[in-house]
Amino acid sequence: MRTATENFDSVIIRFGGEIWIKSNWTRKMYEKQLLQNIKNTLTQQNVPHQKIERKHGRFYIRTQNARDTALILARVFGISSVSPAMKTTAKINDVVTKSLVVAEEALRKKGTFAVRCKRVGKHPYTSIEVNRIVGKQILEKFEEKNLKVNLNVPDTVLGIEVRDEAAFIFSDEIEAAGGMPLGTQPKVVCLLSGGIDSPVACWLAMKRGCPIVPAYFDNTPFTDQSTNERAIATAKTLFNWAIGFQKKIYIVSHGQNLKEIVEKCPRRFTCLLCKRMMYRIAERMADLEKAEGIVTGEAIGEQASQTLRNLRVLNLAATKYPIHRPLLGFDKAETEKLAKKIGTYVISTRKAKDCTAVPQKPATQAKIEDIENAEKALDIKSMIEDSLRKSRTLLL
Amino acid sequence: MRTATENFDSVIIRFGGEIWIKSNWTRKMYEKQLLQNIKNTLTQQNVPHQKIERKHGRFYIRTQNARDTALILARVFGISSVSPAMKTTAKINDVVTKSLVVAEEALRKKGTFAVRCKRVGKHPYTSIEVNRIVGKQILEKFEEKNLKVNLNVPDTVLGIEVRDEAAFIFSDEIEAAGGMPLGTQPKVVCLLSGGIDSPVACWLAMKRGCPIVPAYFDNTPFTDQSTNERAIATAKTLFNWAIGFQKKIYIVSHGQNLKEIVEKCPRRFTCLLCKRMMYRIAERMADLEKAEGIVTGEAIGEQASQTLRNLRVLNLAATKYPIHRPLLGFDKAETEKLAKKIGTYVISTRKAKDCTAVPQKPATQAKIEDIENAEKALDIKSMIEDSLRKSRTLLL
Repeated sequence: MRTATENFDSVIIRFGGEIWIKSNWTRKMYEKQLLQNIKNTLTQQNVPHQKIERKHGRFYIRTQNARDTALILARVFGISSVSPAMKTTAKINDVVTKSLVVAEEALRKKGTFAVRCKRVGKHPYTSIEVNRIVGKQILEKFEEKNLKVNLNVPDTVLGIEVRDEAAFIFSDEIEAAGGMPLGTQPKVVCLLSGGIDSPVACWLAMKRGCPIVPAYFDNTPFTDQSTNERAIATAKTLFNWAIGFQKKIYIVSHGQNLKEIVEKCPRRFTCLLCKRMMYRIAERMADLEKAEGIVTGEAIGEQASQTLRNLRVLNLAATKYPIHRPLLGFDKAETEKLAKKIGTYVISTRKAKDCTAVPQKPATQAKIEDIENAEKALDIKSMIEDSLRKSRTLLL
Repeated sequence: MRTATENFDSVIIRFGGEIWIKSNWTRKMYEKQLLQNIKNTLTQQNVPHQKIERKHGRFYIRTQNARDTALILARVFGISSVSPAMKTTAKINDVVTKSLVVAEEALRKKGTFAVRCKRVGKHPYTSIEVNRIVGKQILEKFEEKNLKVNLNVPDTVLGIEVRDEAAFIFSDEIEAAGGMPLGTQPKVVCLLSGGIDSPVACWLAMKRGCPIVPAYFDNTPFTDQSTNERAIATAKTLFNWAIGFQKKIYIVSHGQNLKEIVEKCPRRFTCLLCKRMMYRIAERMADLEKAEGIVTGEAIGEQASQTLRNLRVLNLAATKYPIHRPLLGFDKAETEKLAKKIGTYVISTRKAKDCTAVPQKPATQAKIEDIENAEKALDIKSMIEDSLRKSRTLLL
């Protein structure tokens, strides 16, 4: 016998409250982008499905294997939650019958439950009546389970969404990625080292709608192939959240720049000077890519180069585009938690060569005058041009 | 009879993992700042206490009313968690006796428990032996409760921290503010409107160690006294998280600037031009305050003025200091959740006059050339000077 879950034939897709406060025009554009992203995801993941319906602030997808489909869609930005559901008509008898089928499996364990009906359209019943009728039937049919109703904090919620002639019955509301549909903002160039932080910063920019163009700075011989591979692997994982968008990473030749910095400038400034070069090169890439900002994984005070003073010194190297730092206020533990959810944590914590150019005593309170003085020993313009010339892009 | 909790005489203070990876010198500076902030908080809240002990990566405070003290300290940045505890000697008999006292109250409800001992110093027993002995005694003494041991997911954890000659018994680990001790980073000037977002952005900067100097831009007659009062009230609440630091807010006269913008420039640019003026004035305040950055509550795409393109247009107005936007990657719902925790949500959602200068159709994709053209109609330099001259500071 097939279980109720196996008979689920639909997925309810809810999207974020933020979309609703947009102007009509913006909202339509957002919904269109979201629908496109959903379709691309279903196609790429080989999910057979029928037409996607747009009804009263939801998308409804008709599909076999509704649970797997729901889990796949939970990773699409702009979706706030999904529910695998059983579709039926809005006739009260159908609603009750199917509710009992769903309840049988959902209420397998003892405990408390509540029925919660939401209704849009004209029907010969109110939502409260549906709650009462279905609740009563459940108590009667499963009398031997000794179930109890608890309207405030039930162990299980049986949800019923009635939309015009259709009704959807479900027992799970799965939290999805949230944010805004990818592609509703312009691109950003992201500094991606492959460590724990930078992929999380990338993901947060994507979450708010920005397609990413990661730039990895290859510091060989101060790092090696293991560091490169780690960065590329995190990029691949990030792009799993961006189905339908270009999956390109820049591999920037940066080891020669770092070598010059180490040789010609005070050692305590190495990391700051290295990063300032990265910012400058990222600016050029933003020009090329028509991106509108640069994203980095810096958090206030997380490393010597990330004191508030040093962030200012970094910013002054590149003012053409904003340096966006979504992790500014994050504790390391919070970043790690998010990295686990995204799927990059296991990759970022793999063994890889740490940069050997990092000095013993990095400056935590650099002065911009000292930094600019140190940079006089460098031919910055030709370093940038050399790096760009030797850079390559990988399609992942 | 006093309950066990009433007999708690100590608070265990744990601080963040991030402090431990700092260099020796930095770590000492951080701990010193944290200790000072703790002392200031206890003094300001009239908590009688004896000497604060620093032992093996913890602070221990001796105080009556340990639970209230713990809750007060849970709001000090840099502390990761606190536990009200009962202090005793490290002699095994004392540890067992006091553990039973704490267990009696902690295990009032039925369910599962685990004993978890952590030990630093030389003792005639191991941590595992303590777990076993205390666990066994609990099962025997409270036999009628039919308790069960569950080492993986217990309902209750009885914690024992043995530190040299002392031991601390506790049953609660209360999550604290986290972050870095306030004052370990330089100051930031914060644009504080009093709405939901900007106080949360301020709080996140504080959480990472930056004392804040809020700047509220008074746009009367486009806003009114209700808007001013709301902003001041959010600042007051924020400063409850900054005991021992200066509580000053700038009230910037900005209505006249906005009036000129509305009269002389295309209406679709009003909000962008208004904000660019705010950024410029904030830069001057950062100079005055020797701050190292400007903090704003913008999130990517949250409002028309916050599209990625428009954030870039805003940034270009002020490049001397970084514009730090801790909420960049936050969904509105996430910001609201944090605002509730901070205590500013109830204030920010109070009725206050919305700015009446906001246009019907604000530009979502402004071009910097158009913005700079529009600004030619303004005497920006004298607007800044006028605003600064008419600004006042309030000590809260």
